[in-house]
Amino acid sequence: MAPLKTWLQLDPRSHFSIHNLPCGIISTVASPEPRPATAIGNYALDLRAFAQGNGFARLSTIQPHQAVFSQPTLNAFATLGRPVHRVVREYLQSILLENGPFPEILERNEALQKEALLPLNECKMHLPMQIGDYTDFYAGLNHAYNVGVLFRGPQNALQPNYKHLPVGYHGRASSVVVSGTPIRRPTGQILADPAAEIKRPTLSPCKKLDVELELACFVCKPSALGEPVSVTNAPEHLFGVVLMNDWSARDIQAWEYVPLGPFNSKNFGTTISPWVVLMDALEPFATTGLDNDTQLLPYLDEQGRKSHYAIDLTFSLATRSGKTTTLTRTSATELLFSFPQMLAHHTIGGCPFNVGDLMGSGTISGKSKEEKGALLEQTENGKVKLQLEGGETRTFLEDGDTAILSGVCGQEEYAFVGFGECVGRIEPALDLAG
Amino acid sequence: MAPLKTWLQLDPRSHFSIHNLPCGIISTVASPEPRPATAIGNYALDLRAFAQGNGFARLSTIQPHQAVFSQPTLNAFATLGRPVHRVVREYLQSILLENGPFPEILERNEALQKEALLPLNECKMHLPMQIGDYTDFYAGLNHAYNVGVLFRGPQNALQPNYKHLPVGYHGRASSVVVSGTPIRRPTGQILADPAAEIKRPTLSPCKKLDVELELACFVCKPSALGEPVSVTNAPEHLFGVVLMNDWSARDIQAWEYVPLGPFNSKNFGTTISPWVVLMDALEPFATTGLDNDTQLLPYLDEQGRKSHYAIDLTFSLATRSGKTTTLTRTSATELLFSFPQMLAHHTIGGCPFNVGDLMGSGTISGKSKEEKGALLEQTENGKVKLQLEGGETRTFLEDGDTAILSGVCGQEEYAFVGFGECVGRIEPALDLAG
Repeated sequence: MAPLKTWLQLDPRSHFSIHNLPCGIISTVASPEPRPATAIGNYALDLRAFAQGNGFARLSTIQPHQAVFSQPTLNAFATLGRPVHRVVREYLQSILLENGPFPEILERNEALQKEALLPLNECKMHLPMQIGDYTDFYAGLNHAYNVGVLFRGPQNALQPNYKHLPVGYHGRASSVVVSGTPIRRPTGQILADPAAEIKRPTLSPCKKLDVELELACFVCKPSALGEPVSVTNAPEHLFGVVLMNDWSARDIQAWEYVPLGPFNSKNFGTTISPWVVLMDALEPFATTGLDNDTQLLPYLDEQGRKSHYAIDLTFSLATRSGKTTTLTRTSATELLFSFPQMLAHHTIGGCPFNVGDLMGSGTISGKSKEEKGALLEQTENGKVKLQLEGGETRTFLEDGDTAILSGVCGQEEYAFVGFGECVGRIEPALDLAG
Repeated sequence: MAPLKTWLQLDPRSHFSIHNLPCGIISTVASPEPRPATAIGNYALDLRAFAQGNGFARLSTIQPHQAVFSQPTLNAFATLGRPVHRVVREYLQSILLENGPFPEILERNEALQKEALLPLNECKMHLPMQIGDYTDFYAGLNHAYNVGVLFRGPQNALQPNYKHLPVGYHGRASSVVVSGTPIRRPTGQILADPAAEIKRPTLSPCKKLDVELELACFVCKPSALGEPVSVTNAPEHLFGVVLMNDWSARDIQAWEYVPLGPFNSKNFGTTISPWVVLMDALEPFATTGLDNDTQLLPYLDEQGRKSHYAIDLTFSLATRSGKTTTLTRTSATELLFSFPQMLAHHTIGGCPFNVGDLMGSGTISGKSKEEKGALLEQTENGKVKLQLEGGETRTFLEDGDTAILSGVCGQEEYAFVGFGECVGRIEPALDLAG
């Protein structure tokens, strides 16, 4: 398929080609109220301004719903459902298309261009959705295996349940923040000497601060208490995908997590990328994930449907020196369970979902060292030093380090469907001594 | 202290004496919009009607904020802060007091009585707060010990971290429901034969459906990402307390919970009582909890402050036969950590809180069998049958069973400060065969 061409100038390698059109929430100095936008090249198309300027004149289905484009989150737009997301995205493609059917709407409407086409670098990005509940899964098989080997050895690396169900935990919705938000190094209880007979923790800034390279998916269709969503119906419940960095304090985690799971080791911040790539934009890159050699129960059986996406993922580390090193290159195909499977499992017992709920994939790792999506794995829990550009080394994150996740689908110029970046910089811990 | 007397007729043993005045959200057939109320004896005082009828005429501090009494949740009222909750509660006490200072407001105002004093049994109760995040702790020392003995024996019953920090996990806010909401028996993955060498789960309705007798506390003051709340400041962040039944599917839990904690075994429903008993109403019953023989880190040290409450708690089981058996009698003093300690720990790493966030105590159990707050403990994981009134027996909950939690402070007639009941009835599982 030849790439579609837009009348806008854009970088051939832009993540935000006309094939993408992700949704986000922007504000500007001139207009500080957060509102929905889509991204195209180096521009945000302000959907509030576009709607108010009669930009949707040729799309009658959206006419009664245009108030969704004046909301401070995407929840109202998401609630309209996937068929509406589809027609809106296709309509916006037609508006941006070279030799498109409706050039009078924007291409030849300089007044509306001035109102609605804003340079991306002048836009402040906000959390795209109001998140009711956030769940993080652990579906990265290689990650789970690598971590299991570190703590239990290769024989017992994976727990008996691991391949039967997408293991997950409830995360902290209040701590999900948008890319660019500084992350303060957390302080917490740490066991300085885990081998000591008497376990006596200290209160200390985290010394094993880590990233987790993940994807996360927003839900656009509610489901009621007591009503499971089938794996077949699950795709209609999915709005779109973002990159996610589930920052992790490994030393706090090691002491606190038995028997109820991770808590303060994860709830000091979880960063997501600002642009939600709609499911329809990902569809051309649909593929299968990792092969599961376990016979799944029928409620999780997708019968071979392609419900994973070929997204190339990277994690790069920028230090205060200004040098950046790409430490991880992996793919979203390294997942054992898909988002439809996660939703089907999450709701099988009757757990209800609201629009805006978020499901994380878990850390995504390949098998080789350079494909591992967390420093815990790459450094074997701090034992191996990583070489950075400029001569520095790292085991875990230092103050002033910036973690940069990136993700993109596609090989063809002018046709990339990408996520942009998911960025966070580490600030020093508070002084809580005494 | 002699009990205060109200001009309203009330049962001397009512949980809702003039010393209580809890806050809830009601609606009625005549006026179906949910709005705030307080409870007094067998009446709800509709605070929207009271405010609209100029009931707050003699309380100038609340005048600019009366819109909070027309909201469908208590979040806006809670946000006003504890000093305002205090004056509003004291003002309402003065309005209801026999020989009170302002008899013209309600006592001698039949028109406003007719508008605002509604029979409780004609009120539908709603979830009192919009809950952003819900966390459940595990601070019932005897419960943790009893469960530990069942699964690991008495030598290793408590994990090394248990007395150093309030262990907890993030729960599912979307599944918190108000008392009276039916609870469908969840279906999930269960390992029928845990001893088998090859672990092969089946999809099955839960066969070990349990209650957990808990308290839970709502937060009324937000705290920002990266900013801990000190144990000293924590009380100003607490709005009030409810009863909570953290329904638990023990067989689903046993299979799923390693290594990330409980998930579908808990997120199919968590029931709370509808009336939020304000912290100030509990203050006369403040006391200490269980003695902690471990030296706490300073950020958790309350230095002997009385931050627990002498609340008598019961769990009763009503079967389809109509017979009710009280299975548990215990006290909220059987907690090792207080709500201020839970909040201080939860935020020490920088986890942010929003108004309406909920913290559960964990199951509260005494030491003897009849003091244990979960069937898991009382039946030793199903090995011991419990005798019910009318000759039935139980290990875990059966379809049609109704679990009734109750809690009350005080010994003196006309001065009880109680929670009413927290009730849920078990509906049969969905048929998910095939």
